[in-house]
Amino acid sequence: MKAVQVHDGRLELREVPLPDPHPGEALIRVLRAGICNTDLEIVKGYAGFSGTLGHEFVGVVEEVNDGEAGWKGVRVVGEINLGCHEPGCPWCGAGMERHCPRRTVLGIQGKDGCMAEYLTLPIRNLLPVPPDLPDDTAVFVEPLAAGFEILEQLHLQPTDRVAILGDGKLGLLINRALRFSPATLTHVGKHPAKLTLARGAGIRTLLLGEVGEERFDVVVEATGSASGFETALAMVRPRGTLVLKTTVADSIPLDLTQVVVDEIRVLGSRCGRFEPALRALSNGVEVDSLVQERFPLERALDAFEVAGTRGSLKVLLEVSG
Amino acid sequence: MKAVQVHDGRLELREVPLPDPHPGEALIRVLRAGICNTDLEIVKGYAGFSGTLGHEFVGVVEEVNDGEAGWKGVRVVGEINLGCHEPGCPWCGAGMERHCPRRTVLGIQGKDGCMAEYLTLPIRNLLPVPPDLPDDTAVFVEPLAAGFEILEQLHLQPTDRVAILGDGKLGLLINRALRFSPATLTHVGKHPAKLTLARGAGIRTLLLGEVGEERFDVVVEATGSASGFETALAMVRPRGTLVLKTTVADSIPLDLTQVVVDEIRVLGSRCGRFEPALRALSNGVEVDSLVQERFPLERALDAFEVAGTRGSLKVLLEVSG
Repeated sequence: MKAVQVHDGRLELREVPLPDPHPGEALIRVLRAGICNTDLEIVKGYAGFSGTLGHEFVGVVEEVNDGEAGWKGVRVVGEINLGCHEPGCPWCGAGMERHCPRRTVLGIQGKDGCMAEYLTLPIRNLLPVPPDLPDDTAVFVEPLAAGFEILEQLHLQPTDRVAILGDGKLGLLINRALRFSPATLTHVGKHPAKLTLARGAGIRTLLLGEVGEERFDVVVEATGSASGFETALAMVRPRGTLVLKTTVADSIPLDLTQVVVDEIRVLGSRCGRFEPALRALSNGVEVDSLVQERFPLERALDAFEVAGTRGSLKVLLEVSG
Repeated sequence: MKAVQVHDGRLELREVPLPDPHPGEALIRVLRAGICNTDLEIVKGYAGFSGTLGHEFVGVVEEVNDGEAGWKGVRVVGEINLGCHEPGCPWCGAGMERHCPRRTVLGIQGKDGCMAEYLTLPIRNLLPVPPDLPDDTAVFVEPLAAGFEILEQLHLQPTDRVAILGDGKLGLLINRALRFSPATLTHVGKHPAKLTLARGAGIRTLLLGEVGEERFDVVVEATGSASGFETALAMVRPRGTLVLKTTVADSIPLDLTQVVVDEIRVLGSRCGRFEPALRALSNGVEVDSLVQERFPLERALDAFEVAGTRGSLKVLLEVSG
């Protein structure tokens, strides 16, 4: 089968063997896959991964190895963290496979990803997709779940003034998730055209230069750039919270004095549970406007080039129909 | 009067005019002053301060300007943050002068400090010292309050495994404060002799090299070194908390990826309320063993040299008796 692989920083479309599902795993035919900034960072060296890229997908179960046969033919999305599920693992036992120290992560760490004709994933990681949800919407479950993760970690108050910093695809999905909080949202970005996609009832949009001296109770950093931390820090009030979403391949010099002096809380935030995101999309949360362009799997390298262009929104791979 | 001043990175003992208390302020004769790492950092350029150094003191009220005459002759310690107390300031209104954006800070920001024969401070900042508390103990109220601040910010659980990183004076005072929490404490340092000062019932001490793969729910970084953040980060479990206490004059390259991937909470922590610290010292919390050496004010430059020596504990200035 065809697979988009990275080896030593080189991205290639390769012909590779069909994967064999382990016991408890499903073989899934990929319908759509999405390109995430993390994929672009992996190509630059982040996470030291090599193999098949990709962790955003919707697909159809073709086969199950030692599991419920009822899954065959079901359209699914799948949680990307594979916990060890060994007896006594406190993380897996608590349904927090995404922090299991022995986990692998689809297309990121020790497990081939979904930018291929087929992938394998444990059946326990799968969620059925409601029939009326289009493939191009369902493929947004994983990145939207990363937005809902903030609502799991942080109790947003009705009086909180929250700024989302970054008008890229992640920032705009976080925008969709945080609409489910009672806080007042301000979306801050650099691109007027993309900020229009952030608008909604009661949501203010600001260009970065317009922020001025304003300080927020919570700032969600979703810039995708190593310098985003400092920009976000300048926007947080004393004793406020900075939610950090960006992971990049490089270190930059940082002065943490303000974190101490202003007693800022910095909260790292990564993957979220799929269920709330899937439910939100089923209930009509709009993501169509976030699609930049669609490419067939054969043109994956072109797709990565578009995805890597400054200001690009979500690029989808149409793997099968 | 004599005063220890810093100007353009030069520390000097100068003869300066006696300060004039503003309305609502007290003129305080200094009995003892302590040297803090922040003072050493200010000499290196931190906070861009010039004037009289010092924010740890115990003294006697000599005079009040437009305030209760009953304060005259009272031995006091004093909160170091001077809020604006303008009508409508949300910080001062909530008793959080230490985050008022218009504050000055004794010996750190816009207000001459306590390493002098006299200082001035608003009467509202003062707390009387119980008669049986020695001067050399009362002078520890301010740095001990910085330890209690952690207990104000963070709800430590009985099941929490907490590591205090750093066996310097701040780390050892945080050790004293965190004994008032139900958590299990491990004190991690580099100096076996100083770690003996960290011991107590149920408190484990470890040399840094002995930590190995162990991870803690909470790590309190009190190393006084810019590199302490990364050392602390390596000791925090996923979704754990890193309390950051160190403020230094320099930036260092930092990779915040682990904060995001492990969803770490980084909590900056600075000054605390004086009352709990004063009460703890009155109730017998031991700090005498943390005194490295005492110097008369005239020998302040020698005192700073000792305080700046690697591994030095608290150096006190004996200003008057």
